[in-house]
Amino acid sequence: MQQPIHTAKADGTSTAFSPVAVIRSPFHEKFGIPRQPGLIRDVPAQVVLLPPFNRKEAVRGLEDFTHIWLIVQFHACPPFDGSMTVRPPRLGGNKRMGVFATRGTHRPNPIGMSVVTLVRIDYEEGITLHIKGGDLLDGTPVYDIKPYLHYADAVHEAKSGFAHSPPQIELRVEISKELRERCKEFEKIRPGLLSLICQVIGLDPRPAFKKKDDVRIYGVKLYDLDVRFKVKDGVATVVEVVPC
Amino acid sequence: MQQPIHTAKADGTSTAFSPVAVIRSPFHEKFGIPRQPGLIRDVPAQVVLLPPFNRKEAVRGLEDFTHIWLIVQFHACPPFDGSMTVRPPRLGGNKRMGVFATRGTHRPNPIGMSVVTLVRIDYEEGITLHIKGGDLLDGTPVYDIKPYLHYADAVHEAKSGFAHSPPQIELRVEISKELRERCKEFEKIRPGLLSLICQVIGLDPRPAFKKKDDVRIYGVKLYDLDVRFKVKDGVATVVEVVPC
Repeated sequence: MQQPIHTAKADGTSTAFSPVAVIRSPFHEKFGIPRQPGLIRDVPAQVVLLPPFNRKEAVRGLEDFTHIWLIVQFHACPPFDGSMTVRPPRLGGNKRMGVFATRGTHRPNPIGMSVVTLVRIDYEEGITLHIKGGDLLDGTPVYDIKPYLHYADAVHEAKSGFAHSPPQIELRVEISKELRERCKEFEKIRPGLLSLICQVIGLDPRPAFKKKDDVRIYGVKLYDLDVRFKVKDGVATVVEVVPC
Repeated sequence: MQQPIHTAKADGTSTAFSPVAVIRSPFHEKFGIPRQPGLIRDVPAQVVLLPPFNRKEAVRGLEDFTHIWLIVQFHACPPFDGSMTVRPPRLGGNKRMGVFATRGTHRPNPIGMSVVTLVRIDYEEGITLHIKGGDLLDGTPVYDIKPYLHYADAVHEAKSGFAHSPPQIELRVEISKELRERCKEFEKIRPGLLSLICQVIGLDPRPAFKKKDDVRIYGVKLYDLDVRFKVKDGVATVVEVVPC
């Protein structure tokens, strides 16, 4: 062990848990991130193990599992303000539910859990898990990696209240031929960009209360690009894709 | 908010996360606890919310979900010793797997996750969630409670390597008529005791390396009782059930 776990930092702030890995993903800001994992199944991302855990032994046998859990910190959230209720976007943003009855990021302990597809493990230059289906911000600290156990975790008979079905694609996304060509250029080092743009904007990332008569131009950051779009009559038009 | 979250304790030890609830369960020691949730589906347990979260608003809407996730601390484990591999009981205890390829309790950050059945919520004297199917030690600190989302969490196509199927009942459990009568007395304030004894011992909680030619008498603590048994030729005989 090269670094202590469960000890106070020298600067006086406390951290009982230290990250074992960090997320690399195309999502560089919260706006636009699918609200649950698996909504956008093709999103490529990586879990980069940190020292002293970046060793082959630590993941021995993990390749036999198709899916893994990531236990993460919602690190980009403001501190919990003590509010016991939140307004889930799924309910139009105007109905309050208990903080423990939702999966929102603003909660007493900002711990998240996501099941993702394990695509492959890269053993060159440390250990990198290549994953798909994540809903995680680039730079997210990972506290734990666990195999998904089908018999324990897949509860077929579960009923999930107001959130039983996944949110549906809400918007048709239009991109001009010229912009498509530009995106194809960008795709050389940003895999799946065009498909990602369509899926992320299609889920309509705008706040629920904005969805009527909205003339604003919105920007979603994907990889290092700012994807700007506007919405009218259920159609989202991408107006610009530029490095930010 | 009556107590700060995310602050260092006065004694110098650190805790970034504070419990929001605590588990009450029949499992008063690690030995005998099913190795995954749901193996013993009838185990009644409770999640008792702690102040300031023991308010009705904090769980508003949770009753619409049949299952919930508990994010907990494996609080009875010794500190992580830096070992990158563990010996899963499922593999007979003689094969080493990466710590991130197993669900064992001895891991870099001792965080556990269990999906349990939410039976009902009791609003008398604070907030208590009555659950079934847990694999948690009495007194376990709970960091988070989240609704189980069927569309996000139940991955039907997942393949789970060496742990795809649940462990099977391994032992036939014999209990004398006299002991059964005594257990029925005990059951008045310890719901489901007899069934619990048969299931817990049936899963054979003995260490894997002990399973051959074993003449020891073992004790499992369930509620406040010591349940003593011995094993021969695939049959476990309960020899004593006494308050401990």
